[in-house]
Amino acid sequence: MDLDARRKADPDHWKLASAIRVLAMDAVEAAKSGHPGMPMGMADVATVLFRKHLKFDASAPHWFDRDRFVLSAGHGSMLLYSLLHLSGYQQMTIEQIKHFRQLGSITAGHPEYGHAEGIETTTGPLGQGISTAVGMAMAEEAMRAEFGSELCDHRTWVIAGDGCLMEGISQEAVGLAGNQQLGRLIVLWDNNDITIDGRVSLSDRTDQMARFAASGWRVLECDGHDAADIDRALTEAAKDDGRPVLVSCKTIIGFGAPTKADSAKAHGSPLGAEEIAAARKAYGWDNATAFEIPEDIAASWHEIGARGAATRKEWQTRVDALSSNPRDDFARRIGNEVNPQLAQTIREMKQKTSEEQPKLATRKASENVLAALNPVMPENFGGSADLTGSNNTLTPGMGIFNAGNRLGRYIHYGIREHGMAAAMNGIWLHGGFRPYGGTFLTFTDYARGAMRLSALMGLPVTYVMTHDSIGLGEDGPTHQPVEHLAICRATPNMLMLRPCDQVETAEAWEIALSHDTAPSVMALSRQNLPTLRTNHQDENLSLKGAYVLREASGGKPAVVLMATGSEVEIAVAARETLESEGTPTRVVSVPSMELFRAQSPAYREEVLPGGTVRIAIEAAIRQPWDWLLLGERGREEKSAFIGMEGFGASAPAPALYREFGITAEAVTERAKALL
Amino acid sequence: MDLDARRKADPDHWKLASAIRVLAMDAVEAAKSGHPGMPMGMADVATVLFRKHLKFDASAPHWFDRDRFVLSAGHGSMLLYSLLHLSGYQQMTIEQIKHFRQLGSITAGHPEYGHAEGIETTTGPLGQGISTAVGMAMAEEAMRAEFGSELCDHRTWVIAGDGCLMEGISQEAVGLAGNQQLGRLIVLWDNNDITIDGRVSLSDRTDQMARFAASGWRVLECDGHDAADIDRALTEAAKDDGRPVLVSCKTIIGFGAPTKADSAKAHGSPLGAEEIAAARKAYGWDNATAFEIPEDIAASWHEIGARGAATRKEWQTRVDALSSNPRDDFARRIGNEVNPQLAQTIREMKQKTSEEQPKLATRKASENVLAALNPVMPENFGGSADLTGSNNTLTPGMGIFNAGNRLGRYIHYGIREHGMAAAMNGIWLHGGFRPYGGTFLTFTDYARGAMRLSALMGLPVTYVMTHDSIGLGEDGPTHQPVEHLAICRATPNMLMLRPCDQVETAEAWEIALSHDTAPSVMALSRQNLPTLRTNHQDENLSLKGAYVLREASGGKPAVVLMATGSEVEIAVAARETLESEGTPTRVVSVPSMELFRAQSPAYREEVLPGGTVRIAIEAAIRQPWDWLLLGERGREEKSAFIGMEGFGASAPAPALYREFGITAEAVTERAKALL
Repeated sequence: MDLDARRKADPDHWKLASAIRVLAMDAVEAAKSGHPGMPMGMADVATVLFRKHLKFDASAPHWFDRDRFVLSAGHGSMLLYSLLHLSGYQQMTIEQIKHFRQLGSITAGHPEYGHAEGIETTTGPLGQGISTAVGMAMAEEAMRAEFGSELCDHRTWVIAGDGCLMEGISQEAVGLAGNQQLGRLIVLWDNNDITIDGRVSLSDRTDQMARFAASGWRVLECDGHDAADIDRALTEAAKDDGRPVLVSCKTIIGFGAPTKADSAKAHGSPLGAEEIAAARKAYGWDNATAFEIPEDIAASWHEIGARGAATRKEWQTRVDALSSNPRDDFARRIGNEVNPQLAQTIREMKQKTSEEQPKLATRKASENVLAALNPVMPENFGGSADLTGSNNTLTPGMGIFNAGNRLGRYIHYGIREHGMAAAMNGIWLHGGFRPYGGTFLTFTDYARGAMRLSALMGLPVTYVMTHDSIGLGEDGPTHQPVEHLAICRATPNMLMLRPCDQVETAEAWEIALSHDTAPSVMALSRQNLPTLRTNHQDENLSLKGAYVLREASGGKPAVVLMATGSEVEIAVAARETLESEGTPTRVVSVPSMELFRAQSPAYREEVLPGGTVRIAIEAAIRQPWDWLLLGERGREEKSAFIGMEGFGASAPAPALYREFGITAEAVTERAKALL
Repeated sequence: MDLDARRKADPDHWKLASAIRVLAMDAVEAAKSGHPGMPMGMADVATVLFRKHLKFDASAPHWFDRDRFVLSAGHGSMLLYSLLHLSGYQQMTIEQIKHFRQLGSITAGHPEYGHAEGIETTTGPLGQGISTAVGMAMAEEAMRAEFGSELCDHRTWVIAGDGCLMEGISQEAVGLAGNQQLGRLIVLWDNNDITIDGRVSLSDRTDQMARFAASGWRVLECDGHDAADIDRALTEAAKDDGRPVLVSCKTIIGFGAPTKADSAKAHGSPLGAEEIAAARKAYGWDNATAFEIPEDIAASWHEIGARGAATRKEWQTRVDALSSNPRDDFARRIGNEVNPQLAQTIREMKQKTSEEQPKLATRKASENVLAALNPVMPENFGGSADLTGSNNTLTPGMGIFNAGNRLGRYIHYGIREHGMAAAMNGIWLHGGFRPYGGTFLTFTDYARGAMRLSALMGLPVTYVMTHDSIGLGEDGPTHQPVEHLAICRATPNMLMLRPCDQVETAEAWEIALSHDTAPSVMALSRQNLPTLRTNHQDENLSLKGAYVLREASGGKPAVVLMATGSEVEIAVAARETLESEGTPTRVVSVPSMELFRAQSPAYREEVLPGGTVRIAIEAAIRQPWDWLLLGERGREEKSAFIGMEGFGASAPAPALYREFGITAEAVTERAKALL
């Protein structure tokens, strides 16, 4: 690595890139923790990207038609923070850089969406960024098709490392992007041959170029420390020929650090004062103090940050020139605002629902809701991980989204639950669409990594999780969720909805599609269920989380039965028996524990009064129910749980409900024993 | 598809394969659910495999040196059940086939490990089988290196479908197997171009041959309905040249079904009587009743099942001829028996531990335990998903397992948490080793699919999950587990262990390495912790799940503080304050809720008596604690939880503990308020 020759070849570039490197070294050193090696290695590529290719305006971070830049290798957060600071994003002050990784600063260890403008998505768990970017690129194609390239015409750029490419989710993203022919998705691979444990060869010998090409990608290479060569590759990459692009950028981790470069030692800890001093010297940066950027270099970077201002203004002029109809619609869409027709459509649907309708699986009820909503909500962007007919997620007229039909609003995600979840995050983050996607509830397991990010970022995407219990029957324990309701309820900021019939399913969709700070997970039955909610159709009772579905005779319950989803039917049947035997019994439907928890103590007390027998019924494990069963302050309710204690089994659903003792008879007997 | 020509080309083969097809059709029809298309499509390949290549003896399903056969596309379970029945596995009677997918039968919807001999692993969640097989193949290489090819000399065969190959986990398996040069791993890809939603092209255009080749695999092709061509390809595949092998078997799903073949309609539901009758006619099988196998064909299949008997006896003779020392050791190893030196080594280690030792992270404590155990436990097979230095999983003298050193006992799994977990399942299932593998606790999310299978199958693999709370500090909320303790505790048959110091960590390892029916998840701290357990070193108190670590003065607590792991230190500090102020306070350490739940009610009452203030302290969400806080029957304890309510943040650990109010002061104040 002949630094001198590199410096002399392009002194202007060298200084710009060196600014990133010194900020990364200084911030990590000050924080006494962090990852300097990746920003130092990718500084040249990032500089060329921001200086010559990325369409952005640092003064308008929310400009809709900006290129999206995703740092998939999120541990290199100082690369992103340096770029934002240097190019003039207002929030990213030098003070924030100095407080890298400190409480209350916007410069977290890994980039956190919402902390600072310019952070397009939360990254850190490897592979998420590249997979989220696939969703962004699909949303761009779809918005461009719908509103025209005058309003939507941008690229999605990703920096990914070996870790991102080794994670399984990346193959799902690669396959999906290749098949969708996302020609404006460009992945810059930080090909530095180092992972935490050492050389990549310790764990992988994959020819990444060949692997991406096998899935329909265009593959390019460049010397990641040669500005001209990077520029050539990025220019080539930016030509959309209908294939997503991988650019292998051959780099050296910790570039310029005399003893730690090109080794795992540069990856994840401060370099130390001595190493930093030597690197600064090698960069020709030995006259500045820590965090100091010489004025001429700062000015050059600010020019870069203003590069896109004129383009942005032209775009704004075009938007302003639109007639009010497309303009308002466009504004609502890119603002991700709630559709004004949602509430009325749901209300009408509920009013039409009567006791007389035949038994219906809630997955089918969900399809009915979507069939009513999708025509009036052009922002709904559906899909399934190859279970379309089982998840009931496709409704007439949506059209299939693919390279030949960018107006289609349904995605065949393939057998890629994790990739689907990450893509949904990206679709929402891009703006313009509300994504929903289906799989079986048990495959929450496969999608967990991206589902957690939906919750952490607060993105209101909707997971349509069907086959939500042993009620799926013969497919057996691998396909029967038992702990997954508990998993979703345990996850902060995740809204778990388990409706019991057509009416509650409509309400659940209204909640999901009007939420704007949390993902919804909808647990839907495979098996048919009766219509139980036949009153108060004007109100969204599910929004309260739990409510009295059947009152005890006389209004004073001796027994309160709580249940969700397919088990509400069982509670109602048990109530019939108990009431017929003279026991006043109330049934409380609990479509969402999270929403119930958010109600006032007075309302909660009203629904679940003290001094009664309480029984909860759910074909899943007990863990999330203890707080409702045992009382929030250890009250004296006698209580019981009717549900699962272990994994399920393969048999027809009715046989399984009997086998595991989840029946109206079991509920009735338990209630009598406790009374 | 000219069935007649195919039939005439090889009538013997045709009849054998047809037997599989009719059994699959008949069983699915009788069950009124299931997947006939895949067994019908892969019947020819499976027949050739069992007839000419697979090393097995149906009369000895547990023979250690058998080839392993993994049906990764587990929905095609009737393929496996048919093969087992036809070749003469005793348990797999025709009655079981007739009761396919019924309660209590061994023929579950997807193959369930432990239900029937010959089922090598549970499959169903796609991609798990191929990834588990990688572990089996690694274990075979390692056992062969250790005991010689006289005792261990077999292959691992996998049947995988498009779904398996689209799931991200498969890329992790492909990369790992390619790098490890597992030349005896052979994947037969059911290349039928159909997924549930339709043609593969709806969701993928990956050239799988090119993709596998890119990761160092040898790739072959065959006509999956031409016995001679299959035989040629399998013969070629069985030659170990140091590369794992992918054989693309071009097949037709539902082969022979006149209207449903080559379409998604053949995949996941019964064909119907009419279609079945027509298919039987096409097979030339129209003289037999449902489930009837003509005697000559049954006899031919039984011969196939006995093909390996002589080889097995020769192997047994070689084993019997060994001197007692290697023979007993080999027997213990392939029986996966507990190491007789384990208990003593742990006891000695605990006795050496004193209060005087400096503060120590439990991840470091775990390394100390492993450093003592690994030299005396040759069955320990360690690894990490590229976090070796952080997980503290590598101890001196293990050696690195790779193509050049099959005696190495440490695997660089790469950035592949899911692949690692599945491989660990495979290593255990193969026999000979106890695998453990490390990553951060939060990346439980990435490994969930395979971790659930560890629990469902009851495999005692050990997950070494470090950085187990906000205590990891600056890496921030993406890396800080909050809900993951709850997730593991919610999962049936998963043992969650969170030790508080060196002594409990040693006990946790003793529990994990002597368990034989459940996986252990060990949650270990990044930050240093004091030694708190300085008494009863002879006994494994952690085995009780919870125990009195510090008694209240006078033995009658007014306050009971419960905590796990790094928060036990906080409980002990709070107790000091409360006791100094005259409040008798007990500290209960809770290394495992699952183990405590299994204790007698009397013991639980003794540890957590009624009528006290109870406070639980854990830097995670409350959900799993309610049962301990609120009493199992709604007793009157006044209680509180000190922990997390949402995601963490990026800052040094002490700042985070203060920020989220998890401090001895907060505990003390809350206790006083409740008294």
